[in-house]
Amino acid sequence: MSVVVRDPLRTDRATADGLGAYGVATVHEAQGRTGLLSPALRPVYRGAHVAGTAVTVSVPPADNWMLHVAVEQCREGDILVVAPTSPSEAGYFGELLATAVAARGVRGAVIDAGCRDVAELEKMGFPVWARHICAYGTVKETLGDVNTPVVCAGQRVRAGDVIVADDDGVVVVPRLRAAQVLAASRAREEKEAVSRARYTAGELSLDVHAMRERLARKGLTYVDREAEQAQDH
Amino acid sequence: MSVVVRDPLRTDRATADGLGAYGVATVHEAQGRTGLLSPALRPVYRGAHVAGTAVTVSVPPADNWMLHVAVEQCREGDILVVAPTSPSEAGYFGELLATAVAARGVRGAVIDAGCRDVAELEKMGFPVWARHICAYGTVKETLGDVNTPVVCAGQRVRAGDVIVADDDGVVVVPRLRAAQVLAASRAREEKEAVSRARYTAGELSLDVHAMRERLARKGLTYVDREAEQAQDH
Amino acid sequence: MSVVVRDPLRTDRATADGLGAYGVATVHEAQGRTGLLSPALRPVYRGAHVAGTAVTVSVPPADNWMLHVAVEQCREGDILVVAPTSPSEAGYFGELLATAVAARGVRGAVIDAGCRDVAELEKMGFPVWARHICAYGTVKETLGDVNTPVVCAGQRVRAGDVIVADDDGVVVVPRLRAAQVLAASRAREEKEAVSRARYTAGELSLDVHAMRERLARKGLTYVDREAEQAQDH
Amino acid sequence: MSVVVRDPLRTDRATADGLGAYGVATVHEAQGRTGLLSPALRPVYRGAHVAGTAVTVSVPPADNWMLHVAVEQCREGDILVVAPTSPSEAGYFGELLATAVAARGVRGAVIDAGCRDVAELEKMGFPVWARHICAYGTVKETLGDVNTPVVCAGQRVRAGDVIVADDDGVVVVPRLRAAQVLAASRAREEKEAVSRARYTAGELSLDVHAMRERLARKGLTYVDREAEQAQDH
Amino acid sequence: MSVVVRDPLRTDRATADGLGAYGVATVHEAQGRTGLLSPALRPVYRGAHVAGTAVTVSVPPADNWMLHVAVEQCREGDILVVAPTSPSEAGYFGELLATAVAARGVRGAVIDAGCRDVAELEKMGFPVWARHICAYGTVKETLGDVNTPVVCAGQRVRAGDVIVADDDGVVVVPRLRAAQVLAASRAREEKEAVSRARYTAGELSLDVHAMRERLARKGLTYVDREAEQAQDH
Amino acid sequence: MSVVVRDPLRTDRATADGLGAYGVATVHEAQGRTGLLSPALRPVYRGAHVAGTAVTVSVPPADNWMLHVAVEQCREGDILVVAPTSPSEAGYFGELLATAVAARGVRGAVIDAGCRDVAELEKMGFPVWARHICAYGTVKETLGDVNTPVVCAGQRVRAGDVIVADDDGVVVVPRLRAAQVLAASRAREEKEAVSRARYTAGELSLDVHAMRERLARKGLTYVDREAEQAQDH
Repeated sequence: MSVVVRDPLRTDRATADGLGAYGVATVHEAQGRTGLLSPALRPVYRGAHVAGTAVTVSVPPADNWMLHVAVEQCREGDILVVAPTSPSEAGYFGELLATAVAARGVRGAVIDAGCRDVAELEKMGFPVWARHICAYGTVKETLGDVNTPVVCAGQRVRAGDVIVADDDGVVVVPRLRAAQVLAASRAREEKEAVSRARYTAGELSLDVHAMRERLARKGLTYVDREAEQAQDH
Repeated sequence: MSVVVRDPLRTDRATADGLGAYGVATVHEAQGRTGLLSPALRPVYRGAHVAGTAVTVSVPPADNWMLHVAVEQCREGDILVVAPTSPSEAGYFGELLATAVAARGVRGAVIDAGCRDVAELEKMGFPVWARHICAYGTVKETLGDVNTPVVCAGQRVRAGDVIVADDDGVVVVPRLRAAQVLAASRAREEKEAVSRARYTAGELSLDVHAMRERLARKGLTYVDREAEQAQDH
Repeated sequence: MSVVVRDPLRTDRATADGLGAYGVATVHEAQGRTGLLSPALRPVYRGAHVAGTAVTVSVPPADNWMLHVAVEQCREGDILVVAPTSPSEAGYFGELLATAVAARGVRGAVIDAGCRDVAELEKMGFPVWARHICAYGTVKETLGDVNTPVVCAGQRVRAGDVIVADDDGVVVVPRLRAAQVLAASRAREEKEAVSRARYTAGELSLDVHAMRERLARKGLTYVDREAEQAQDH
Repeated sequence: MSVVVRDPLRTDRATADGLGAYGVATVHEAQGRTGLLSPALRPVYRGAHVAGTAVTVSVPPADNWMLHVAVEQCREGDILVVAPTSPSEAGYFGELLATAVAARGVRGAVIDAGCRDVAELEKMGFPVWARHICAYGTVKETLGDVNTPVVCAGQRVRAGDVIVADDDGVVVVPRLRAAQVLAASRAREEKEAVSRARYTAGELSLDVHAMRERLARKGLTYVDREAEQAQDH
Repeated sequence: MSVVVRDPLRTDRATADGLGAYGVATVHEAQGRTGLLSPALRPVYRGAHVAGTAVTVSVPPADNWMLHVAVEQCREGDILVVAPTSPSEAGYFGELLATAVAARGVRGAVIDAGCRDVAELEKMGFPVWARHICAYGTVKETLGDVNTPVVCAGQRVRAGDVIVADDDGVVVVPRLRAAQVLAASRAREEKEAVSRARYTAGELSLDVHAMRERLARKGLTYVDREAEQAQDH
Repeated sequence: MSVVVRDPLRTDRATADGLGAYGVATVHEAQGRTGLLSPALRPVYRGAHVAGTAVTVSVPPADNWMLHVAVEQCREGDILVVAPTSPSEAGYFGELLATAVAARGVRGAVIDAGCRDVAELEKMGFPVWARHICAYGTVKETLGDVNTPVVCAGQRVRAGDVIVADDDGVVVVPRLRAAQVLAASRAREEKEAVSRARYTAGELSLDVHAMRERLARKGLTYVDREAEQAQDH
């Protein structure tokens, strides 16, 4: 059975936008090192940084019919998340679909398959994270689902979850945890600012974070270069 | 036996140039979704878009001797197409060979193996699509063929076929079909312009292309969010 | 046993800097087509070209504790070389560690694993060559080694060896061979300049390097296009 | 936070065992072509066919501590499902852990990472489906979760879901759908038996399933060999 | 346009069977080191060795409709060769289709995609060489071609060409070269029998094939172990 | 310069044979989780378990000339270790070379490239661990080295080091550490025998190895199933 869920609960706009102030690495750490999609997904051009609420699309291999169905379910502040049910290099998404969803306020797309028209997408300023850049065309023959939970590039994504994406990759933040992850991201960034200042001044993390004793207890040994040359073989 | 075919029949210049006005995605669709080389071939720098007639080179793994033979067979408007007989990361092609073929009017190269000197190639403005960026050097010991049919990145290419390449990848158009594919590309682009305008205006492809009835017949069902939450598990 | 070797013998600065005047392809050829790291390592941004002396770090999978230990061993002109003992996509290195090592004069990093904060690294101008761009965080639980010999992306690297890296990849030059490879690089570049000039003038490498006779002896045959069409099947 | 869920709801034994009477291909089709784990998971030896209820384990890369925690949660009829939070080749599971879980009635393991001691596992008759066969050892430093939902090889798996695995791969059947999928599997197998008998007797699926008219409507054309040779180029 | 070519010219039975007396390695060498399909194609079970005439099928990704069309075109002594137009892991072929083609005398199948029911195929003794073992099901929505030339796993295959397949992989021999390759295979095997006898008796290939002088001329140097230890670093 | 080192120091026979009594996983752990070659190397047939002293061969891509040179350097109890200087699928080694080295008492081969004639190798009982099974032929044009240090599948191997290989993969033990690793392997096996007996009797490793307190200190929490369902989303 093929289903389109209309108007799923979305993370509130302020929280989603708030998460967009932080990088993917920060958000991923702030939620306990979870939610990162596979690094096989890469931005089709460098320099974009977006956050928004997921509209999920489960698609058959090499068939993008459901993307056309999904457009209607999109609204301002969404990000399209596309997961094929079997791996495909096909170019599910290009400049025409980008035009259609951009007209509805969609901020980007995350596609665990192929994307095409990448030069045009860069010109439009519509960012896409995809597994492949590939012009291979899709058919419109078989149904899928919109806004049901999917697994995209190794992570569970539900409609309305927050997606944050930048040059480091893509992370999903579950709707019910978004506020808490936002707070944790802020805290983490503040802590990192302190470290950054001290490192810039030439301090060592060994001292800033008091690692020396624990390292020694684990058995770390410092030797001079001659000892090393004797042991080399 | 190792063979160099001299002066193969080439697609006429106007047709090849005409195809270069269209993107790889358009041309590939216009010839019935065929001819696309594997997306494992990527441009060594972004932003180039070329079309030309293929000079094919079949090369042994990690041996680029035949490229030197091929230079002499190149002329204005050609594109070098290099296919190793066994996969190789070696850097078959770099700035020196690019200098040599550019001096003969060659517009780019497509290499199902490694390419090197990519910073220099970008400075020269000589575009290459390659499977690897790799400095590993090649030897000059074993022969191959020039201008015989090859399989390059999964597609059959014959000398004189048209190659179109851009940021989306590389497509081959057989010489005998080139005029017909050019016409079909033009037709496709015109049709897409209409869709683009309507999408920009906020119309949905579901309506523009009258998909709703066929979707319903296939069994597409719209549900509200509560139904979805009940079924989730 | 976990070991940090202090103050290893480093290639002298002038030689390391001298090698940095040449590209990776040139240096790799000049030392007999050896020392090239796997092309799976890619620069996290384009356009950097660095040379320096290796500080090696052997790290457990997804654990970057030893990088913090390694910072203290770095000095002006070094390049960090990080090799996990089992493949990992984790983001071992990011903007904070880059800040720490840049403060000590380190010129770049080579990581046979993941790197993160790539937008920030580009802004800082701190170049990294990595196998993955991935935000996945690391732990600090298990020891490794600093400045012992490692295998990084398929090549043996010892502390104090020269690393040269550019858009073509990364090459290691053993300390004891560095002076000799520098001389050979210079010689190679001079020879290539001559070829370049002759190719630009339209001469063929077949003639410049007198290949025709050897090709003929190996059995290379030139045929006209009709012969080719008869043999095609 | 690291969590062990005790005594999760499991699919009832009869249903799980019932599904074990069917192959992975049949079960996967019977639930609408869903639930198949990536074919990158392969049996470490050929010929096993098991079904059971999932005990899920989310593990850090190259750290198998939580497998030791999971053993206690296993009971007769379970199958261990292990998903690392970042890809790892490490050998999380071998003969010792197999001995431990076999003593509790566990029927097999599914590991989206490495497995070792494969000769011993075959001798014991304890089947494992794994992404890698790799002896690399794991540490015991970082926590994970037991019996919380995981994504394993591209599929969501919850504790108590049914796992069916054979030489074709691994499929997960959600607990709440298991009875329905069992019925559908039975129906599918009966239908296939009829096709098999007719095919064995030399009938064509074109006729058995009345495909000819639909093929013709789609535009399928039969030509003789001469026509083909004319079009070949 | 979708085409089925009926009754293509096939290599004569005696020649095809004759080639089946030789292994893939021998045949591939005998035709000048050409025609070998990518080693990514592996037998779904070990120990089969077949030769036959190709019935080619070009299929869309994850759609096996044309295989049903192809069955009717098969006859005694054929081998099915299946090439998707875009990479797919889907299980195009399984026990039911094997039953259908075996009833017509087909000897095996070569599939540049997924195969399923591998335990049943082994029981039936119907060998398949495939890129993936994967149960993922296919649809029947989009047409393709039968008996037109295809590129399968990197090699051009035309209907009626000879396919030889064993545990080493798959090789294609063009119909027009088959007789000549058969003779060359026989000659090669005879020559190898002589080498084998001499090697078994302890002779060295250096002497049997008189390599020593050419090696020396190329610069091969023998050193004793002390020299090696001095140069090691 | 191309070099053959004659008669390198080899690990003594008793130690090498002694290590062969242990599996790869045990030996690898016993030397501190080091020395394991990439699991991309797989046995060409299952069930072999060998140990011996390495004869190393550094070979150009797709050129096996140096294997012929290496044969003469082999003696009773050796294992051939072949590392290409650039990745290659080519079939460097087959039944003829196996015949030649078996006649000299060589016990197996480890090849970071392709191997062919695998059915014959199994019949002969000559085990090979290789990255690819591939019939593609090699040339004899370019020199390499014998018995100089190589990097093979990610590990440094020197002539005379011990190689242990079984169905789990391949591990190298440096000559100077071999006696110590042998002792450690024995100790590890004895310790595991105790664990095995206790696990078989149904004891948990949590108790056998007293892990519960450390797990609790790290924060491991046990919850009942209701708590889990509340948190699931």
